[in-house]
Amino acid sequence: MSDAAKNSGAASPTIGVFDSGFGGLTVLRALMAQMPRARYAFIGDTARLPYGSKSRRTIARYAVQCAQFLVSEQGAEFLVIACNTASALALDAIQDAVQVPVLGVIEPGAEAARAASVTSDVLVIATDATVQSHAYAAACRARGLRALEKACPLLVPLVEEGWTELLVNAGNLTEAYAAQAASAPPQVAVTAEVIRIYLAELTAEAAAQGMKPDTLLLGCTHYPLLRYLLESAVPIGVKIIDSADATAEAAVKLFDQKPVQKRSPNAQFPSAKDQVQVRCFATDSVEKFERLGSRFLGRPTGKVELVDLGG
Amino acid sequence: MSDAAKNSGAASPTIGVFDSGFGGLTVLRALMAQMPRARYAFIGDTARLPYGSKSRRTIARYAVQCAQFLVSEQGAEFLVIACNTASALALDAIQDAVQVPVLGVIEPGAEAARAASVTSDVLVIATDATVQSHAYAAACRARGLRALEKACPLLVPLVEEGWTELLVNAGNLTEAYAAQAASAPPQVAVTAEVIRIYLAELTAEAAAQGMKPDTLLLGCTHYPLLRYLLESAVPIGVKIIDSADATAEAAVKLFDQKPVQKRSPNAQFPSAKDQVQVRCFATDSVEKFERLGSRFLGRPTGKVELVDLGG
Repeated sequence: MSDAAKNSGAASPTIGVFDSGFGGLTVLRALMAQMPRARYAFIGDTARLPYGSKSRRTIARYAVQCAQFLVSEQGAEFLVIACNTASALALDAIQDAVQVPVLGVIEPGAEAARAASVTSDVLVIATDATVQSHAYAAACRARGLRALEKACPLLVPLVEEGWTELLVNAGNLTEAYAAQAASAPPQVAVTAEVIRIYLAELTAEAAAQGMKPDTLLLGCTHYPLLRYLLESAVPIGVKIIDSADATAEAAVKLFDQKPVQKRSPNAQFPSAKDQVQVRCFATDSVEKFERLGSRFLGRPTGKVELVDLGG
Repeated sequence: MSDAAKNSGAASPTIGVFDSGFGGLTVLRALMAQMPRARYAFIGDTARLPYGSKSRRTIARYAVQCAQFLVSEQGAEFLVIACNTASALALDAIQDAVQVPVLGVIEPGAEAARAASVTSDVLVIATDATVQSHAYAAACRARGLRALEKACPLLVPLVEEGWTELLVNAGNLTEAYAAQAASAPPQVAVTAEVIRIYLAELTAEAAAQGMKPDTLLLGCTHYPLLRYLLESAVPIGVKIIDSADATAEAAVKLFDQKPVQKRSPNAQFPSAKDQVQVRCFATDSVEKFERLGSRFLGRPTGKVELVDLGG
């Protein structure tokens, strides 16, 4: 057992966050904004991504290994599965394998869409693997929503290329966009055009099916980095729901119901002026994680530690 | 042993072609154009892609399994490694593991660039993994060429999205492009703009290093589907060398040196009016392979057979 695990009872509670890659850092970022005084351990299973093309059994095996690492080695008392594929296909297996509360990203995203939608017609954009699982459609249907899903395979590589930097600090979005659109670098203009094409195809398909969507659900952990470009591209009246934010809000509620403090009687949050404590782990490609991760996390990841989880 | 292997001595010789995915079908297409009377067996190790993020040892193990499947199960008497990563990192291991001639894509590509270049300055575009291996730069340097490599991570997903369909049957390229550019669908315009941005960055970097490049080497098996858009985007006087074509030409030469016929004394090519015989195998995602593969192969792949190569 590591020092972190041994000390977890005496320090602030630890929330474990897991993704197949580093996209889930946007979920960690949202969690840190909601619960700045917790400690966090994040693992990206970068050696074995993409999960989307693998069988349910293999995904469950990998996800359980990561979950057990976070609980046993890092002392996590609460797990967030910040990976759409693992949330869709392995949540039950993880819940069976560990003794701490586990939250995925799909149910909170669908729940937030239900709260936001008046027409009960929802658009979902995600990766090809997530769309093929139809996990969001099923979670929406269970809440009385009609969902139309679209795979947008170009958005993840556009984000990973960094062709997204426009306006990340803009306050008044529409005004700032209008002012800066003319001077947007060509890379950002490409991303804006790709988003326009995808959303035009999706809204045309929704209209053809007689839907009146008023909500767009972002079903991929990379998409929060496109939030401003998406805001500028959705039809007027369509609200954007981000699974990362929705999951962080759900985590706070679950946290209140099952306080981590009860599991560690001596635990105390550090004072508000303390830095959020984050340790990041990856199973491969640490350099890429460090290089790109800070953009997803909104702050430096610090040194990413390499771990070997076996086969 | 399969029927194909048992019968290979009595039928036309079989060329085995291997890729981690289905991009290598562009190499198979080039081989079929050069040697229409051979039989072909293609395997895409789609369950375990991408190879680029894995260790050399793991890549070699996977590649050897695929090579042995082609030789032992499909009776291949000659292997083409239509995968840049495996060519860069596993060619020796494959050559050690099988008793038939083996050809990769990198050396033929570099050799064709040497033949084409007058200034001896060459530009290479490829995936991130291939660029990080610097295999093309090394192969060029060994031939007295100076190579500048650039990773273009958006081009593979753009090809896989099919945002490339313009002008595939155009005869006079420049004229046809000028006539049709104004009516290009927005998807193709995005791809053209991405290519323009990448090539502008690459040529600016080359100029900053004092290079006078006259050759652009396509170091990814997906890029032949962008050939026409690339032709329209390169500076005047820059020739495009396609590793797929170069590999097929090298295969013909190697074929002449080590004729497959010698290994199968009774082998006879089918008559010229016979269809080229191709069998395609994949380790996963057969549906995606069938759906996208025909665009790479330039004809239907036929039914793609699923094979399990173990762990």
